[in-house]
Amino acid sequence: MNVVAACDAAALSSLLDTGWNPPATVVDEVAKIISDVRARGDGAVLEYARRFDGEGFDLAKLRVPIPMVDAARALVPAKIVSALELAQDRISRFQGRQRQPDIAFVEADGTRYGVQRRPLRSVAVYVPRLATLDILMGAVPAKLAGVPRVVVLSPGGAEPLSSTLLFACALCRVDELYAIGGAQAIAAAAFGTESLVPVDKIVGRGGIWTTEAKRQVFGRCGIDELAGPTEVLIVADDGANSEYVVGELLAQAERPGVTRLGVLSESRPLLEAVAQLLDSLDLRTLERHELVSDAIGNHCRLIAASSRDELFEVLNRLAPGYLCLQVRDASEYLGRIYAAGAIFVGDTTPVVSGEYLAGTSSVVPTAGTARYASSLSLGDFTRSFTLVENTAQRIANDAELLAALAELDGLPNHAQTARMRLEI
Amino acid sequence: MNVVAACDAAALSSLLDTGWNPPATVVDEVAKIISDVRARGDGAVLEYARRFDGEGFDLAKLRVPIPMVDAARALVPAKIVSALELAQDRISRFQGRQRQPDIAFVEADGTRYGVQRRPLRSVAVYVPRLATLDILMGAVPAKLAGVPRVVVLSPGGAEPLSSTLLFACALCRVDELYAIGGAQAIAAAAFGTESLVPVDKIVGRGGIWTTEAKRQVFGRCGIDELAGPTEVLIVADDGANSEYVVGELLAQAERPGVTRLGVLSESRPLLEAVAQLLDSLDLRTLERHELVSDAIGNHCRLIAASSRDELFEVLNRLAPGYLCLQVRDASEYLGRIYAAGAIFVGDTTPVVSGEYLAGTSSVVPTAGTARYASSLSLGDFTRSFTLVENTAQRIANDAELLAALAELDGLPNHAQTARMRLEI
Repeated sequence: MNVVAACDAAALSSLLDTGWNPPATVVDEVAKIISDVRARGDGAVLEYARRFDGEGFDLAKLRVPIPMVDAARALVPAKIVSALELAQDRISRFQGRQRQPDIAFVEADGTRYGVQRRPLRSVAVYVPRLATLDILMGAVPAKLAGVPRVVVLSPGGAEPLSSTLLFACALCRVDELYAIGGAQAIAAAAFGTESLVPVDKIVGRGGIWTTEAKRQVFGRCGIDELAGPTEVLIVADDGANSEYVVGELLAQAERPGVTRLGVLSESRPLLEAVAQLLDSLDLRTLERHELVSDAIGNHCRLIAASSRDELFEVLNRLAPGYLCLQVRDASEYLGRIYAAGAIFVGDTTPVVSGEYLAGTSSVVPTAGTARYASSLSLGDFTRSFTLVENTAQRIANDAELLAALAELDGLPNHAQTARMRLEI
Repeated sequence: MNVVAACDAAALSSLLDTGWNPPATVVDEVAKIISDVRARGDGAVLEYARRFDGEGFDLAKLRVPIPMVDAARALVPAKIVSALELAQDRISRFQGRQRQPDIAFVEADGTRYGVQRRPLRSVAVYVPRLATLDILMGAVPAKLAGVPRVVVLSPGGAEPLSSTLLFACALCRVDELYAIGGAQAIAAAAFGTESLVPVDKIVGRGGIWTTEAKRQVFGRCGIDELAGPTEVLIVADDGANSEYVVGELLAQAERPGVTRLGVLSESRPLLEAVAQLLDSLDLRTLERHELVSDAIGNHCRLIAASSRDELFEVLNRLAPGYLCLQVRDASEYLGRIYAAGAIFVGDTTPVVSGEYLAGTSSVVPTAGTARYASSLSLGDFTRSFTLVENTAQRIANDAELLAALAELDGLPNHAQTARMRLEI
């Protein structure tokens, strides 16, 4: 593999997304699925689930009963139970620290102000096939925020959902579970069907179809962000361990969907070492080698920065969902990073920590959307209203200025509501 | 005007939006405008600006120089200057209280966690014609958050922008001002043109075209929320002043675009008094009487709740952008409200206070989107990343569990990145 220069725009172009931008065929087909589900409800969901998830699907399999937690635990290997309970505990602690307090204050003239925060009333958590931890990533902060109705959507098809998934739902006090996926699941949750009461917000990561469906239903309900296919950027210095760097590339490379992989460094020797190690691997001997070979061969870049400034310029332009900092002085780097989803610091912190057990969210903004979006957190499950209560003195003092501003905007009836208060 | 029962679903249907749902013609035409601007840049912007904002528009009028603040102040009436400076001060104080601190903590085993917040790099604030305060509503929190590039978009057409608007831009340290509006302005800010470098996020309220355009460009850049045409719900008890109630209805009724107006009360006598007062008005004698007559005649409902429970059920289902509480025991009401944008408490607090001078945001979620969205605030101008740095002990303890979880998900290369750490 070649090392490319950070200033080589053509070489970086495949890594540089300026936002969510799926192919037109996906956009159109997703629009059709949403419109079908909106018009025909369960009938359309059934049709698409059979087409995409398995011929054997039927509506009796749509809603899956969630067992009692102790009964569910008994069917899951002890090590997995421990791991899920540890993850639940760490997610709770990390998210719990992000609780935003209500605000209430009184100004000198007695006028009262406030911001009061409320849990959403209903949320759907999308969980891709074989991504049990995504239940915890969504449902733990949702329940911590106080959401009374938490729905999980996960593609089942004709197969029953796994015992682990059922245990995770029970552990997180999920209220409803539906064995559907893809754009049809997102449409059903947004618009409702005979079997599924619509929700106020849909969260979670998915593939390109699911993510595009979230984008299209936004407005009808809320969504968290556009968390599409996985991506990782490893920023490494000359002291980094090239085997760890390659390990991270291979790990993200095995996920389905178009992946963006990059190593960014001021150290040519480190990049050459990574290149050499990648070249020396017989990718065909690796697990999931077809996905890995495609991602490493087509979607991976080793990028040489000629200065620290250039390194940060490229890093922030790439705005990676996952960012590994395999550098000596990570805290100096942090101050200059503004666009990244989740950051993993040091040799001791592989991305897999954050994807499973660390407690930070694995649902991160991708495709360059970390320029403006953040990873899933407690705040995504709440909303707020503002409050103001004038004193008589405040409105008396303000009335003429309010009237002047309203009249400037051509709103005489607005002005009148201010002046009416002068007649008290 | 008739009083309708809160349980009369048909009577309430015109007030009940379940989310943003514009006519298909608007959706299609907006998509065409966005695709044109994306493909042809300034040329398309020019064409649409001439068609929608005035034949005399040309590209030399697109970017408007922002004067120095003292020079701009000299051209604005003293009362307006005072009002805008007061608004700026109050918005700063209200938004400043909503700053979210960074988070950093260390767990017992030494593993470090963090959440670091960063200002966005560029934001566009959409400002409808004659809505100077909307500059402050967007630019004040943007600059308070530290956004280095704040762009204002406001439809100018062939006319020069007003001195007041220029002063507001200077006062708020706006960096760039463009005299364009509508879907073409949103498309230009999202995708960029020869004259306008694209921004990371677009905020602000607009009409149906602008709001639909924001929905469509979301993903390419961030947006705040879907703040469409105005709406107000007045919740009043038997002690409410019916003249104030009617004043609020007439004020919001004079805004262009489809408006949703409602009065909700357990007191039939209060609702009858409001009805009588409305019936006694000769709407033709009012200012802006065409807009007012249409809104009061077609989009206003007086709603009788048969119990306190029913009142809150309807209130939260309507999820009004603006909510007036003209009741004795407002604090008891607040505890049961979860879906509203901005709340105005008591006889002394007309909505116009919040639209201009109170300091709370007038950019609120509408069309029922207050079920999941909040009004514009400091947090809209920041984003965050999470941080985790394992100790050697943490990764050693976690590695086997991580590997087990990754293998359960069918991700052997993920498992390997954990196991590699055991070989240290």
